[in-house]
Amino acid sequence: MKKQFHSLRSVEDITQLVRVLEIVHELLLKNIHRTKRDVFYTDVKLFKDQKNSDKSIEDVATMLYTTRNATHIVANPRGSCVGRLRIRDQNDIIDLESLGSGSWTISPYLDQIEIIESDAEFILVIEKHAVMQQLLEARYWRRYPCILLTAQGVGNVATRMFLKRLTKELNLPCFTLVDSDPYGHYIHSVYLRGSKRLSYESPFLATPDIRLLGVLTRDLDLYKIPDNVRLPMNKRDIKRTKDLLKEDFVKKNKKWEEDLKLALSKKIKAEIQAFSSKSFEFLTDNYLPEKLTTGDWI
Amino acid sequence: MKKQFHSLRSVEDITQLVRVLEIVHELLLKNIHRTKRDVFYTDVKLFKDQKNSDKSIEDVATMLYTTRNATHIVANPRGSCVGRLRIRDQNDIIDLESLGSGSWTISPYLDQIEIIESDAEFILVIEKHAVMQQLLEARYWRRYPCILLTAQGVGNVATRMFLKRLTKELNLPCFTLVDSDPYGHYIHSVYLRGSKRLSYESPFLATPDIRLLGVLTRDLDLYKIPDNVRLPMNKRDIKRTKDLLKEDFVKKNKKWEEDLKLALSKKIKAEIQAFSSKSFEFLTDNYLPEKLTTGDWI
Repeated sequence: MKKQFHSLRSVEDITQLVRVLEIVHELLLKNIHRTKRDVFYTDVKLFKDQKNSDKSIEDVATMLYTTRNATHIVANPRGSCVGRLRIRDQNDIIDLESLGSGSWTISPYLDQIEIIESDAEFILVIEKHAVMQQLLEARYWRRYPCILLTAQGVGNVATRMFLKRLTKELNLPCFTLVDSDPYGHYIHSVYLRGSKRLSYESPFLATPDIRLLGVLTRDLDLYKIPDNVRLPMNKRDIKRTKDLLKEDFVKKNKKWEEDLKLALSKKIKAEIQAFSSKSFEFLTDNYLPEKLTTGDWI
Repeated sequence: MKKQFHSLRSVEDITQLVRVLEIVHELLLKNIHRTKRDVFYTDVKLFKDQKNSDKSIEDVATMLYTTRNATHIVANPRGSCVGRLRIRDQNDIIDLESLGSGSWTISPYLDQIEIIESDAEFILVIEKHAVMQQLLEARYWRRYPCILLTAQGVGNVATRMFLKRLTKELNLPCFTLVDSDPYGHYIHSVYLRGSKRLSYESPFLATPDIRLLGVLTRDLDLYKIPDNVRLPMNKRDIKRTKDLLKEDFVKKNKKWEEDLKLALSKKIKAEIQAFSSKSFEFLTDNYLPEKLTTGDWI
């Protein structure tokens, strides 16, 4: 990254950048973590708008060739995890199988977390917390040895980083379960390769081996999802699907390309919960086991 | 609650109501929980729109004079809890002090949860997860024996119900820490007395003894929060504050009324994170201990 000194504006840029470096230094010395919002509030006069401090934070992380997490400026925690996994966080040993019908909120302070052991055979990343809760209630990891993870929507930095560590250290296959719509497929792509905006972070965050288990467009016919729980695509969905089809990572995956083209030709989408139209247990007792045992993913 | 049979529309109403009763019966028999969205998807033809199934679910709960949770139709989990507390959830005993820098996501299946013990002296309900994470990192319950809880915004049903059980069974004082703005104060009011829409649930959900610890408008001067991190109120904030001032539960509390009037006269608001302008530890090391020891709440 280069910074130019051509104008007064660039002087301001540098001042903000240096201030963020100071803050990062303070956070690291004190071994505490704070959010972007906190950083903005340390010097409102200088940063003026949170956009500016956010930008400087990203610049600092890029300059240092590290992740934002390593600067101790962390995002809002939002993900949670449960299943066949034991971790150590400072002096606590946490058994993620023994949290009742709750789960462990993924701490954004990943630098202090150690993955101890797991006898899981796969990791399932779920778009929606409500769907994860169904699997939680069924104690799914007892029937199928797995680790379950959700970030409620697009994976945030802490969740993606935690997932990457899990797949890497445990060497486990990893699948996503998302809505059958372009946004669901986009969520999968963010786990797969990172977001465009934070492309410099991708090496630290992406899980290139993650597979899209479902819900695929072709699943809707295969599992006889009734027409009245399929939803028509709106203009935005159509545009998003077309945009996805232009991406290299989709073009490289013929099956994925086919599925998106099928969605586009039928102009339909569906939520994971559409399986409730079959029965309340269809997702856990039929769909997931069949998909996993037949290897029917993308 | 009465249902009238005056028109074809009311026949549809009753059919939907009976269908929901059937579903509740199934959920209770199978001892599983599902969300409103799942219920809608069981019969899209009949319900047409999720608004209709949601309405029927509320009607069923009212008819049975119980909470929606007791019907096993639960909301999306969103809250989390940590601190000096041990609970039993089915066969798991969960120690909420030993979750590293993570926390326990509050399960919406509260019927199966037992509160075992706690040596906390108070409960602190926090508006924002990012702020709770600060207290989590400081292991705040070690310094001040407490239970921390957040729902990230307005308390959802599971969180409010869990809080009510905690305060009732442990007989502990309970405080909220919210933004110094009308929305923050509204969040406090929802814990205090429930939301208007779900007024029938209030007896099961409200915590009438909860106190507003802060951030109060008067705290801004008292703790010398710099002017540049105070934000101007917009039209919506002003309307919301005026609406709050009309509420009986505010009129009954002179100190609260005064604080809202002060906010209205100054037309300013501030976020909890504004304390970062003082120092990164000001909230945990100065503000909270002072407020709690001097009993400076509303």
